[in-house]
Amino acid sequence: MAKRSATSRKNPRRSPCPISCGLELFGDKWTLLVLRDLMWGKKRYGEFLESPEGIPTNILADRLERLVAGGIVRAEPYQTNPVRHEYLATPAGEALFPILKALAGWGLKHLSGTMTREQVLASQR
Amino acid sequence: MAKRSATSRKNPRRSPCPISCGLELFGDKWTLLVLRDLMWGKKRYGEFLESPEGIPTNILADRLERLVAGGIVRAEPYQTNPVRHEYLATPAGEALFPILKALAGWGLKHLSGTMTREQVLASQR
Repeated sequence: MAKRSATSRKNPRRSPCPISCGLELFGDKWTLLVLRDLMWGKKRYGEFLESPEGIPTNILADRLERLVAGGIVRAEPYQTNPVRHEYLATPAGEALFPILKALAGWGLKHLSGTMTREQVLASQR
Repeated sequence: MAKRSATSRKNPRRSPCPISCGLELFGDKWTLLVLRDLMWGKKRYGEFLESPEGIPTNILADRLERLVAGGIVRAEPYQTNPVRHEYLATPAGEALFPILKALAGWGLKHLSGTMTREQVLASQR
């Protein structure tokens, strides 16, 4: 796959640093939480909205749009009339999952009271 | 070292997810760029301000304060009269560096025109 340019009207590129350019695409808390949800296999609007952090609908719509524009997520229609889309990580997006997993490992080690998704689900049973 | 609570007035905890709690501490572009600078060995106000992304001084001050409050950075005085501080990653902060390096690797692979710091410095010689 060709490398994409991160430059856009919304995300002017401030330097050629790969960390900075990546963060211009997805470097905010809500975007990274949407990526986490994609990693968990969530695909539909309603599923993202159910996550415990309570993402507002307008932010969810904006972040999905940016992720699609940045080549990290693709939208696929799953029904017509009205058209609704599922969101799936592209290969570039999937390549971010190990980084999110490393972040989860960091949080579990350094932040008190954090739990894995499995622990949260088990505690709700 | 004891695990810290990420809960604070500024950063209310939205879920026990270790990714979400970590992002509440440092999940914005400028904070992550300050962490990148710390990884590069930058320590002083003026050094952070020199980075090509052009962090505004008020944002730099706010983000350093949050990182210190979150146990990711410590401030050490290096002069008195007036007191000035150097900023250094704590062990918890240093544990984020491999994650930033992974992010750099992702950007170099997926974002066109990105360059390593060494490549940027070599191109300026």
